[in-house]
Amino acid sequence: MAKSVLTPQSEDFPRWYQDVVAKAELADNGPVRGTMVIRPYGYAIWERMQADMDRRIKAAGARNAYFPLFIPESYLRREAEHVEGFSPELAVVTHAGGKQLEEPVVVRPTSETVIGEFMAKWTQSYRDLPLLLNQWANVVRWELRPRVFLRTTEFLWQEGHTAHATEEDARAYAKLIHEDVYATFMREMLAMPVVLGRKTRTERFAGATNTLALEGMMRDGKALQMGTSHELGQNFAKAFDIKYLAESGQQETCWTTSWGSSTRMLGGLIMAHGDDNGLRVPPRLAPIQVLVMVVKDGEGVVEAARQIVSDLVAQGVRAELDVRVDTAFGRRAVDAELKGIPIRIEVGPRELAEGAVTVARRIAGGKTSVALAGIVPGVTAALDSDHDAMYAAALAFRDERTVAVATVDDAAEAAKTGWATIPWATLGVEGEAQLAKSAITVRCLTLPDGSVPTSEDNPEVIAVVARAY
Amino acid sequence: MAKSVLTPQSEDFPRWYQDVVAKAELADNGPVRGTMVIRPYGYAIWERMQADMDRRIKAAGARNAYFPLFIPESYLRREAEHVEGFSPELAVVTHAGGKQLEEPVVVRPTSETVIGEFMAKWTQSYRDLPLLLNQWANVVRWELRPRVFLRTTEFLWQEGHTAHATEEDARAYAKLIHEDVYATFMREMLAMPVVLGRKTRTERFAGATNTLALEGMMRDGKALQMGTSHELGQNFAKAFDIKYLAESGQQETCWTTSWGSSTRMLGGLIMAHGDDNGLRVPPRLAPIQVLVMVVKDGEGVVEAARQIVSDLVAQGVRAELDVRVDTAFGRRAVDAELKGIPIRIEVGPRELAEGAVTVARRIAGGKTSVALAGIVPGVTAALDSDHDAMYAAALAFRDERTVAVATVDDAAEAAKTGWATIPWATLGVEGEAQLAKSAITVRCLTLPDGSVPTSEDNPEVIAVVARAY
Repeated sequence: MAKSVLTPQSEDFPRWYQDVVAKAELADNGPVRGTMVIRPYGYAIWERMQADMDRRIKAAGARNAYFPLFIPESYLRREAEHVEGFSPELAVVTHAGGKQLEEPVVVRPTSETVIGEFMAKWTQSYRDLPLLLNQWANVVRWELRPRVFLRTTEFLWQEGHTAHATEEDARAYAKLIHEDVYATFMREMLAMPVVLGRKTRTERFAGATNTLALEGMMRDGKALQMGTSHELGQNFAKAFDIKYLAESGQQETCWTTSWGSSTRMLGGLIMAHGDDNGLRVPPRLAPIQVLVMVVKDGEGVVEAARQIVSDLVAQGVRAELDVRVDTAFGRRAVDAELKGIPIRIEVGPRELAEGAVTVARRIAGGKTSVALAGIVPGVTAALDSDHDAMYAAALAFRDERTVAVATVDDAAEAAKTGWATIPWATLGVEGEAQLAKSAITVRCLTLPDGSVPTSEDNPEVIAVVARAY
Repeated sequence: MAKSVLTPQSEDFPRWYQDVVAKAELADNGPVRGTMVIRPYGYAIWERMQADMDRRIKAAGARNAYFPLFIPESYLRREAEHVEGFSPELAVVTHAGGKQLEEPVVVRPTSETVIGEFMAKWTQSYRDLPLLLNQWANVVRWELRPRVFLRTTEFLWQEGHTAHATEEDARAYAKLIHEDVYATFMREMLAMPVVLGRKTRTERFAGATNTLALEGMMRDGKALQMGTSHELGQNFAKAFDIKYLAESGQQETCWTTSWGSSTRMLGGLIMAHGDDNGLRVPPRLAPIQVLVMVVKDGEGVVEAARQIVSDLVAQGVRAELDVRVDTAFGRRAVDAELKGIPIRIEVGPRELAEGAVTVARRIAGGKTSVALAGIVPGVTAALDSDHDAMYAAALAFRDERTVAVATVDDAAEAAKTGWATIPWATLGVEGEAQLAKSAITVRCLTLPDGSVPTSEDNPEVIAVVARAY
């Protein structure tokens, strides 16, 4: 229906993406290069992601706090490896309050260093451990090739930072976030099948001893990293002097983790589920699950539409009313498709006179006439099945576009249209370097049963290889 | 009980405030002057404020969006009056991505200008109006004399910006936010009696045609502005070219409003309700309403405490368990008082053997032994009455410290210990200027029945005069 509105995916995927972002009113470019304005509809989706993720993070025991936007430049020098990764991306405030600053301050690219500083103050004794902190905030990394949601100079994210008494405890927590928080959220809320694995040494986060990642396949066959959870060993704790007095009376160094997910997930959502008619929002996430539309005015039509909305709301459905009859119905319907609203209920005078309305389904497709009494049960059942259908479709697409290969050349070939899986023992560091020349990376290392290997050396380990955002 | 921990209010109120902020683990100073770290307990209070305020803002029809942190310097010059107010407070990024920027960017002191820019794009026709936007974000205003929560270089806030077709509609919306959102929130969640009024011309927000404010009295008799709602007339819309095509086919200029509330409210909460034992958090706001404490270990004590927590949680009470028996009980009890947790339930082996626990009330004061079966009904009733008691106590304190006067000298005298009310016709602009020499300001103009005057010229108008934060 909306075909003329968007560039088809098959024609130009990046342009299709930009079209959806604009036409579904998700975001605009900000006035400073690389920044974005998240529009109300895009932000409503983000708010629902955030609320659900936040609930899961709290259930994992972490507590939210807020650390400052500005970080003294000297803090970033403390962890040499760290600053090397970030310095070309830093935004620096040199003037403030009408004067030049004695020490420039950096706009946080992450709050890691300042959180480290305070962790060191707060972890005095074993009684203070584990210290489980999370923060929702904006961060800044100057981007030369920005793309809305995927790579922006400023983005919104959560960053968790935890300190533990033992390596085992830190490891278990990084895994808990990786699997029980992130992966579950992505499956249950975003309807996205993600591959869980560990990064190779090359791809690992600077300073981490292990990086756990979640990779989703986009509709163009490329991979998007949807979140990461890092074990930092004692590297970070040593740099920031995060120690504690053990029960034994000894001073010990903590073991730390960090983990993050961001507005990048909005980009993932668009590219994993969208089609040539626009965005498709999984029903559990959708800010508007059902749009009840008055097709045109007539005897009792608005009242009936309003009643349908309140019946749905009473059942916990996020339903909204559209009575903008001064805008052409076709245009409003296209708009609802573009925005990926799972269900549209069209209430018109003629059909209503026969006690029925039209239910149009964005996910399953198709339109049917439904008797008034059947609306509520029909809608709740449809929303449930839509979630499962979206997940299944994304999984089937990924399977279809993933090829098991045995050579580096075949991996490179497969990565032109999707993912390749190849034994890590076959690929190795040399193969990884060879693929890198064609901008193909090892997204993560997994085991055949989908679990996460505890080491690269296990001969069963499989590398998932792809082009990535 | 915690008397030795804090400087008494009567001895040194500012030091008492700093002590509470530190000892109740609300916040720390950040490494860059004027910035703050909001610690988990302080942030949990803010999160509950934010969630409740957000719900009310949405009920008023506004939608959340997110605008960029960075604003081109040129934007701030567009509204001359505006930049004059902010320029000494601006933080400026001159270097980013390893290079000097061609045009420096400002870290937002408010998003007004960038939101104005986008409003101009989004309000094409009368169908797009009213456009009701809100944003939750961090903002930066360089502070020379910072004080945690009250005046910080970076703070968290919500800023609403709306555009309307008519002056009446804009005026009604500014009033709706002032009364139905802000005042109701402050009474119902913060248990704070606020005076509602309009600002004098001197105190009005730069560029506003009318500023509506809410003033709370602190325990030292000073006033704190808890939030403001501005009518901006067409000033702002003209500067940013916010126009729309009216039904008549004419291009018309919009009427706009803006309104904000911030982490400053945390400072107000501390100073309006705190006492020499620490913070006192109103029960509807409290992240922890009931702390169930194991006094010391013993047969079935932990199990009984856990059961009490789950019984309370099942009734919707925010209850937490404290089993840290390796920390002295007295210290834990002092900590709970400092944090202002409304109710403490002390579960000890001896009392438990008799089927009872001790209930200690932070707001009403006192400790009583309560039979196990009586805990849940007792607690829920206590939480309800605590809210009303806090509100009543704050109101009584304000009334006691407010003196109706008839001369400027008497107003200055009364403002040494509290507030003065004086007819605006008596005070006038000259009296206002005279009081300003002693750092006393007109907080707002009200009517004798507590309603908000629509003009300064009404002879009934009363000025509320005080020292302020």
